[in-house]
Amino acid sequence: MVRRNTHVAKIHSNYLFPEIIRRKQLFLEKNPEANLISLGIGDTTEPLPLFIAQSLAISAEELATEKGYTGYGPEEGYLELRKEISSKLYHGHFEANEIFISDGTNSDIGRLQILFGPEASLTVQDPTYPVYVDTGVILGQSSFFDPATKKYGKVTYLPCSPSNFFFPELDASRRTDLIYFCSPNNPTGAVATHEQLEKLVHFAKKNRSIIIFDTAYASFIQDPKLPRSIYEIPGAKEVAIELGSFSKMAGFTGVRLAWSIVPQELQFDEGHSVNKDWNRVHATFFNGASNISQKGGLAVLRPEGEKCIKHLIDYYMGNAHILRNLLIDLNLEVHGGLNAPYLWVNIPHLTSWEAFDFLLTEGHIVCAPGSGFGPAGEGFIRLSAFGKRQTIEEAASRLASLSSILQHSEFNWG
Amino acid sequence: MVRRNTHVAKIHSNYLFPEIIRRKQLFLEKNPEANLISLGIGDTTEPLPLFIAQSLAISAEELATEKGYTGYGPEEGYLELRKEISSKLYHGHFEANEIFISDGTNSDIGRLQILFGPEASLTVQDPTYPVYVDTGVILGQSSFFDPATKKYGKVTYLPCSPSNFFFPELDASRRTDLIYFCSPNNPTGAVATHEQLEKLVHFAKKNRSIIIFDTAYASFIQDPKLPRSIYEIPGAKEVAIELGSFSKMAGFTGVRLAWSIVPQELQFDEGHSVNKDWNRVHATFFNGASNISQKGGLAVLRPEGEKCIKHLIDYYMGNAHILRNLLIDLNLEVHGGLNAPYLWVNIPHLTSWEAFDFLLTEGHIVCAPGSGFGPAGEGFIRLSAFGKRQTIEEAASRLASLSSILQHSEFNWG
Repeated sequence: MVRRNTHVAKIHSNYLFPEIIRRKQLFLEKNPEANLISLGIGDTTEPLPLFIAQSLAISAEELATEKGYTGYGPEEGYLELRKEISSKLYHGHFEANEIFISDGTNSDIGRLQILFGPEASLTVQDPTYPVYVDTGVILGQSSFFDPATKKYGKVTYLPCSPSNFFFPELDASRRTDLIYFCSPNNPTGAVATHEQLEKLVHFAKKNRSIIIFDTAYASFIQDPKLPRSIYEIPGAKEVAIELGSFSKMAGFTGVRLAWSIVPQELQFDEGHSVNKDWNRVHATFFNGASNISQKGGLAVLRPEGEKCIKHLIDYYMGNAHILRNLLIDLNLEVHGGLNAPYLWVNIPHLTSWEAFDFLLTEGHIVCAPGSGFGPAGEGFIRLSAFGKRQTIEEAASRLASLSSILQHSEFNWG
Repeated sequence: MVRRNTHVAKIHSNYLFPEIIRRKQLFLEKNPEANLISLGIGDTTEPLPLFIAQSLAISAEELATEKGYTGYGPEEGYLELRKEISSKLYHGHFEANEIFISDGTNSDIGRLQILFGPEASLTVQDPTYPVYVDTGVILGQSSFFDPATKKYGKVTYLPCSPSNFFFPELDASRRTDLIYFCSPNNPTGAVATHEQLEKLVHFAKKNRSIIIFDTAYASFIQDPKLPRSIYEIPGAKEVAIELGSFSKMAGFTGVRLAWSIVPQELQFDEGHSVNKDWNRVHATFFNGASNISQKGGLAVLRPEGEKCIKHLIDYYMGNAHILRNLLIDLNLEVHGGLNAPYLWVNIPHLTSWEAFDFLLTEGHIVCAPGSGFGPAGEGFIRLSAFGKRQTIEEAASRLASLSSILQHSEFNWG
């Protein structure tokens, strides 16, 4: 008989988001009347700007015409979109053949793990977006999950906490082949400064590692001094791959469109081009993003589209400020929310899942428990600023009414 | 430094379709005036039916409304579409949780290889769609490519040729974990009969193998006696995964939409559910097909959509008949084209690439060389029936004018 893949079997069963959904559903079964507010999964909620939706619709309708119909596009995406991403988002610093269009960053991470293979060693920030680790585990880059440490063997976790300003202590860290780094960070909302990213690039150069830099939330950065791309650091082209996405930037979480940048300068050990292998892996495991979504991406990058999405970002950042200001007023320790749509909140004396259950049962609020993102997330919760303004205001009012318990954690567990 | 993935390095560099494009471009550089006809890559050419394109457009426009906006959908696809696929294409024989929506069969094959992992052993038909092998090689399921045999080590190739009616001699074949089988076949255009598929299912049961049955071309089957799904064979649910696609069925090669079926009955060695692991792998490496494409899929499965796509299929099959009748008139050995959009043509005394170069230089026709699909494809070419009627008629006329050379291969090489 066919044996179960031992690497798949390693995957720890309590995957964060399904577990959130499970607890939420259990609660709703017992409390069917509850008006739950979800600040858990970071999903966009605002309708697409009309200009962008109409561009998508026009490209769909044109598929019914002789002139507008397109079958398979290039696996790496339409040339026009690749050029436009370079020109609008990277000041033209990349050739089209260094930019690869995809259906999403999640898929790109999986394919990047395939590119580097089961022998590649892995570093992630702790806490971290779970997909970096999970895809690596399934592809054989880790050994088993240790319930005591809550870590997978062979994976290096770099704690990022208030004590190190959410930037890892690289000097003490061991070398690995790959370093996943997410800025603005999911889940902590921290944004690495130019100086911090210089250190990261230096560390990667010294160790001959490759950084995989996830910029899914770059468009939420408000402070012009903060870098939106790893390539703002001199020399980064030799050590870094960058992932970008239309999901949060333009409300495309359902439409599906993203990109990866693999500079020509990036080389393997023997001098072989990483870009060339990525081209092959990308084209073998993927057949191109939807032609309609790609046309939508082009609309996003037009001046009118850029104006529209700025409104979207401002709206979500307005939500973030409401939540942040309230939490500060409540004297809670809150991080993020200034240049990212996530708030990272310490709830004193409670574990993350205790805080999750407390907010669910007492406030009818769904959050994301910090420990689900890694052991260093214990004691924190992540609040998402994606949501309707009215909902966010209602959430803030519920949080305010729970303030004394939140501050002192007098909730009785038993 | 980061080592190049040894499995990626195994991949034979002359990947079929890029090589076709390379030779075509080389020819066009020398002959910029040539009016090339492409019967090579099997890509749809007819505009989408208006009903379907408008459904896509409406779903895109609705994303600008409060009611119509959707963010992340379930990774496994919208429930409505999963139910509709079961009901319309499988007589309701599957639960929604046995059907997984994706962005394409190509991606699904890659993810299935991840599911089964590097230890899984692989059987393919020879000739075969290259992606089954290439994804397996990159994930470590093979050893090296042998230029003498033109096969990867550890992969089992089952020759399918006119001498065995394009159905492999299973009795003599060794056991592997996975058996990729494509019917209607790409590239040969052969369709397995009910009796043949019974043998295949029996072989898999006896060996406790899993069949991955690719039905990308099922909608082209004209003969009602020929099976369109492996699940028409009793007991197949215990041994088979099926892949289906909107690409060729509905002209969605650019729109991107497909599905996989993993029945609850399918188990690994220790009794662990394959469906459960597939759910996990699918959700970890993929974040759902585009919401717009999924709405388009729903339109395809509505009565009006089904009527529209029947016209598309009839059109391409009309092309196939024109080509097939001509080649028979020319006394060439031709297979396929009756229940599939591909014709598999033997060109006497020429290798596949010689025939390719001959048709390119003398007929200005691009075909797909049979040997590119595997060693047993040597001596054949694949002609695609996807194309405009006028183009197909022009191709037929050019082929007719080359008939004496095609029959006797008097083309002078060298």
